[in-house]
Amino acid sequence: MIKRKKTKRIYVGDVPIGDGTPVVVQSMTNTDTRDVEATLEQIKQLKDAGCEIVRLAVPDEEAAESFGKIKQSVDIPLIADIHFDHRLAIMAIEKGADGIRINPGNMKKSGLKEVIKAAKQASIPIRIGVNAGSLEKELLDKYHHPTVEALVESAIRSIRFFEDMGFDKIKISIKSSSVLDTIKAYELLSEKTDYPLHLGVTEAGTLISGTVKSSIAIGYLLLKGIGDTFRVSLTRPPVEEVKVAYEILRAVGLRKVGPEIISCPTCGRCQIDLFSLVEEVEKGLSDIKTPIKVAVMGCVVNGPGEAKEADIGIAGGKGNGILFKKGKLLKKVPEHLLAQTLIQEVKRMEQEMRR
Amino acid sequence: MIKRKKTKRIYVGDVPIGDGTPVVVQSMTNTDTRDVEATLEQIKQLKDAGCEIVRLAVPDEEAAESFGKIKQSVDIPLIADIHFDHRLAIMAIEKGADGIRINPGNMKKSGLKEVIKAAKQASIPIRIGVNAGSLEKELLDKYHHPTVEALVESAIRSIRFFEDMGFDKIKISIKSSSVLDTIKAYELLSEKTDYPLHLGVTEAGTLISGTVKSSIAIGYLLLKGIGDTFRVSLTRPPVEEVKVAYEILRAVGLRKVGPEIISCPTCGRCQIDLFSLVEEVEKGLSDIKTPIKVAVMGCVVNGPGEAKEADIGIAGGKGNGILFKKGKLLKKVPEHLLAQTLIQEVKRMEQEMRR
Repeated sequence: MIKRKKTKRIYVGDVPIGDGTPVVVQSMTNTDTRDVEATLEQIKQLKDAGCEIVRLAVPDEEAAESFGKIKQSVDIPLIADIHFDHRLAIMAIEKGADGIRINPGNMKKSGLKEVIKAAKQASIPIRIGVNAGSLEKELLDKYHHPTVEALVESAIRSIRFFEDMGFDKIKISIKSSSVLDTIKAYELLSEKTDYPLHLGVTEAGTLISGTVKSSIAIGYLLLKGIGDTFRVSLTRPPVEEVKVAYEILRAVGLRKVGPEIISCPTCGRCQIDLFSLVEEVEKGLSDIKTPIKVAVMGCVVNGPGEAKEADIGIAGGKGNGILFKKGKLLKKVPEHLLAQTLIQEVKRMEQEMRR
Repeated sequence: MIKRKKTKRIYVGDVPIGDGTPVVVQSMTNTDTRDVEATLEQIKQLKDAGCEIVRLAVPDEEAAESFGKIKQSVDIPLIADIHFDHRLAIMAIEKGADGIRINPGNMKKSGLKEVIKAAKQASIPIRIGVNAGSLEKELLDKYHHPTVEALVESAIRSIRFFEDMGFDKIKISIKSSSVLDTIKAYELLSEKTDYPLHLGVTEAGTLISGTVKSSIAIGYLLLKGIGDTFRVSLTRPPVEEVKVAYEILRAVGLRKVGPEIISCPTCGRCQIDLFSLVEEVEKGLSDIKTPIKVAVMGCVVNGPGEAKEADIGIAGGKGNGILFKKGKLLKKVPEHLLAQTLIQEVKRMEQEMRR
């Protein structure tokens, strides 16, 4: 259904971004980068969760040194997140960064030139990361507020600056904490440039508000064909950002990883303990990467219908449930065995699908 | 930004739906309707959370009796959710239901006629609730699967049936567990009818997957001007559905209730314990209904910028934070006093705004 906009292709390490390649999931560590061990552990968790590119803050020289050590110990592309001081970007490039993220709002042009030269020589991309919270003073003076037009102008000015230096390994993000501004800014930017776009709502907030804002903005843009990579930003451990990212990709039909659990909200009709059942099933299937549609339904109203349309599913009755597989009724199972039976059957199905 | 589609207006109790009136938040109890006390308690919780219409399952006569008792004890409109048995709908109408939800896929036409007659006499609306999990057999035979076209045809057929009986207090929902099908179905339906639409993704799943799916589908449709009321469906206590609903409405700029907390995901730059701080602030402000934008930011990169654009905000430093109010720097606050200072200032601001 989605017709993705054709953008230029860049590589962050060996991960392609843009040009119709699969939308890439990114996140950022929130450990102190100078703490090599803690950061390595978090990178491992992120990778296990499906994160494909990890960004690290590099706020000082000690962090840049650590960045180098971390880079030597991982096989996932790492991006150094740099603000203010261009020398830190150059250090990170020397230490093997697979990409640099700079913010045009807080780096002097003279320093930026040095960064671009170093990135060109190292043949790595730079993300131009425009952020409503840190726009160039010049543009804030002109527009008074970080408006959509101001954000897009900041991005376009930076693109020209990079191009004038003969640099085109660019991706761009324009982040605002407003969903509407985010959508408008990316739509406008996408009309004006063919560089790959990195989506995100900045400072989206806590688990629920952050998930809602990111889902609406990123979901809307992906449905419109806009976006080559994205980060969900939550005030939560970054592994949760990756989980939400894959839920968004699955929901818009772009990438399906792991089981999709269809489960009803329960109502006065439900005669089994569905909340616990769904939780148990979700936990039991958390390691599975094969996309399988699993329905866990409380009653006979929509239960049999949904369970039939899923790859596998159960519809709850009174103290028991009916197991469906590929549209066919398999058997009646007592309630206390429902979770384990369903988990077993999904795992069996996964092995069949792998053959 | 959103240009809402003009629909006909109906009333559920005293709550208007359609015709450009504010998008209404609904939920459904998951207590046993026959348990009057538990259901009343949940309705109270839902109302406190901002729910404007509550739906109750009425699966048997005992539940219909209880529905009547519950109706007498609450002042929020109640809808009876009826499947299969038209007599239960008629009982619920006699007991004072403010609206009836039927599913055209599982009620005989002869019975439906009786329901329409009774609703007409009581002057209450009926929701035609098409669901992919329980489509009419006739349409399943024709389309083989509950396709978007099959769902829309089911809705349109029912609308004609109601209209032929001179009944027009209708709202319609077309629910699927697929985000893409939900979007396509409502877009198609919205072209074909001017009755108010009730949005929702059915069996959306657990907290995160359900929030993601509901946010994308409902967010997308609301941004397109489609939808007059909606329910977020989660396999969770229904109060959480209402919270997610308001986050969606806020994110698309349609209704703003309570504080909006802008908070960053933290990174290697953050030198204060932001996760705990945001949680404490969120908790401390949970009773406030006035829309106030509160920024809780970890560092100086985007912190001061976001904090300035918010009504009130803090940007974390090293062991302290800077308090901003209406774009102006107010004072430096030590970390251990940040949460309580921010909460106090927000409450003071709320009182100022009320004057």
